[in-house]
Amino acid sequence: MLEPTALTVSGERLQAAYEFTGPVADAHARAGALCVEQTIEFPADLVPDDDIQREIIGRIEAFDEVGAETVRVEISYAVETTGYEFPQLLNVLFGNSSLLPGVKLVDVTVPPGLSESLGGPRFGIDGLRTMFNAPDRPLLATALKPMGFSPERFAALAYELALGGIDMIKDDHSLANQPFADFDARVRACSDAVRRANDQTGFNSVYMPSINAPHGLLDERVDIALEAGAGGLLVLPGITGFDFMRDIAARDDVALPIMGHPAMLGGFVSSPTGGIAHSVIFGTLMRLAGADISIFPNFGGRFSFSSEACSEISEACRTPIEGINPIWPAAGGGMTMDRTAEMLDFYGKDIVLLIGGDLHRGEGNLRENAQAFREAIE
Amino acid sequence: MLEPTALTVSGERLQAAYEFTGPVADAHARAGALCVEQTIEFPADLVPDDDIQREIIGRIEAFDEVGAETVRVEISYAVETTGYEFPQLLNVLFGNSSLLPGVKLVDVTVPPGLSESLGGPRFGIDGLRTMFNAPDRPLLATALKPMGFSPERFAALAYELALGGIDMIKDDHSLANQPFADFDARVRACSDAVRRANDQTGFNSVYMPSINAPHGLLDERVDIALEAGAGGLLVLPGITGFDFMRDIAARDDVALPIMGHPAMLGGFVSSPTGGIAHSVIFGTLMRLAGADISIFPNFGGRFSFSSEACSEISEACRTPIEGINPIWPAAGGGMTMDRTAEMLDFYGKDIVLLIGGDLHRGEGNLRENAQAFREAIE
Repeated sequence: MLEPTALTVSGERLQAAYEFTGPVADAHARAGALCVEQTIEFPADLVPDDDIQREIIGRIEAFDEVGAETVRVEISYAVETTGYEFPQLLNVLFGNSSLLPGVKLVDVTVPPGLSESLGGPRFGIDGLRTMFNAPDRPLLATALKPMGFSPERFAALAYELALGGIDMIKDDHSLANQPFADFDARVRACSDAVRRANDQTGFNSVYMPSINAPHGLLDERVDIALEAGAGGLLVLPGITGFDFMRDIAARDDVALPIMGHPAMLGGFVSSPTGGIAHSVIFGTLMRLAGADISIFPNFGGRFSFSSEACSEISEACRTPIEGINPIWPAAGGGMTMDRTAEMLDFYGKDIVLLIGGDLHRGEGNLRENAQAFREAIE
Repeated sequence: MLEPTALTVSGERLQAAYEFTGPVADAHARAGALCVEQTIEFPADLVPDDDIQREIIGRIEAFDEVGAETVRVEISYAVETTGYEFPQLLNVLFGNSSLLPGVKLVDVTVPPGLSESLGGPRFGIDGLRTMFNAPDRPLLATALKPMGFSPERFAALAYELALGGIDMIKDDHSLANQPFADFDARVRACSDAVRRANDQTGFNSVYMPSINAPHGLLDERVDIALEAGAGGLLVLPGITGFDFMRDIAARDDVALPIMGHPAMLGGFVSSPTGGIAHSVIFGTLMRLAGADISIFPNFGGRFSFSSEACSEISEACRTPIEGINPIWPAAGGGMTMDRTAEMLDFYGKDIVLLIGGDLHRGEGNLRENAQAFREAIE
């Protein structure tokens, strides 16, 4: 048995909900074990009746049978267990429990003290409505593809798309620093192209390069993007870590809208009884980590997310959280222009319509197709 | 249709294997779609017969029915698609495909040019055998717990454990920079304690602090650990990104053994038909990203990894890869001393035995229990 420990804590609690699949009779013991696993990871019977028992080990706050073999358990943790840092927040929420069978993280609520430390999205829904002079319409986005093009060819595409009135022209997430179109040359050429188009149209289209870089080059690529005059940044938190996104969202010297891409994150949603709920990973966590826009695959596209999952993500992007801006869901993944009306009906007007290859089809050239897309939503 | 593109590539190919679950008749088309998804993510029918078609889009190299509803497909990619950078390597392997249903990444083979760029583990099996003067025995590791202790109490534990002859005394992965034991004070106190113990024993035990920090503080915490004289580093690539680990493994000014922790990575292995195989994520990827030791939950512990999964991880840690050192599997997760013989029988002697809470039980005090553990394996 350890010697007793005395601690001072604020009383603020982080709340998480988990679904436990399996015999209901076992669920309470499993939830109790999770309260230990996510905090002290030490035999609880060796800890005396002290502040580690009372304040550090997670607490079961609610326990509900929600299916024949599914129990939803609300657990709270002292906010101090996170050290007010995003990486340790993830660790408390699901670090080791990700390795337990039949446990799914389905909801997260952070207390005001933690929201304030994290900061969240700089622009959110209102900020981008102002930026794009779009008080009332959905926003339009597309991606520069395919890998293999030179910087000049990407810039030519970006120019046409900006002339056509697309708000956000992002790198495809596959564009990193390949020899075909290295980051520096691509970002300078595309930023210039969009600036020239804006001078002609009076629009405020932005080019958003993808910052998917080795650890030691992440900040350097952000600096290159800033110098080149890029208008936003695409970030892949499943690869470079959620906290890199939070970091650049918090930097006043960056102050650009951030689009969070779901690459690799699908691994967390591939099991119905494990991993992390769509709403948490593509909604709550993206938002707490500073994404102004969260990209996810639309239902009915090639990725087969359900309409229910898409609806839950969309809601998690916008539900009120004290001190954290609501953000834009961006439904993409093989979307076509003829689905626009259906998508507006489903998501409402606070939606980024992300259309890629389909703009290269159709009767017109790229600029004309982009114009038609913009006219259709205005 | 695009204008044709001419490209120069080395001819070196990255190989990945995927299992497609679902009707066998659909598998070839799904694999073809994945070849596009992971590279150009653009309608292939709009690309002419050019170098993007021939060199950039992935190639199906082998196609085998391995079950009634499972097909294993080998796909190769031009190494240039990765830009020789680890984050983009992950993106090519599984970025968007992580979001597709019924697709699992089950094997990865990198060509020599990419291995050389990545570097891999600095020490590996032989390097740590030399470091710990352990030509022939398994290595011993434990974790400092529980969260809530002060730096002084952790240092007192570390001192006893080092006197008892534990090779690697790591922070529990839950220790970040909480107010109870902030990083700086904890790392200085524990590094000192282990040094004092080594002076008495003549052993070369090391203290390995956990570097789970916000983006802008990662390098600073590595510097603090170096200054304090820490003997290794614990890294959580599922949270801070695999490339942060690769970066510090490659730094000559760090030159410390690195232990990769599986926090959050369980999300990738929670579905039998999706995500990433245990061997790939806890073996191949940990190793390519520079971990000298890969921690995973042992079979029969509280995490319920199967013995088959553990065996596959262990093999992936050690199978020859040109230019990349073999590494130590570290089986943990509620392990007890009485399982030592069984584990040596299962894993062989190239195994790190990671025992936590159990050292606090038993008849002796912590030092005596550690000594008994060490004697048992010598």
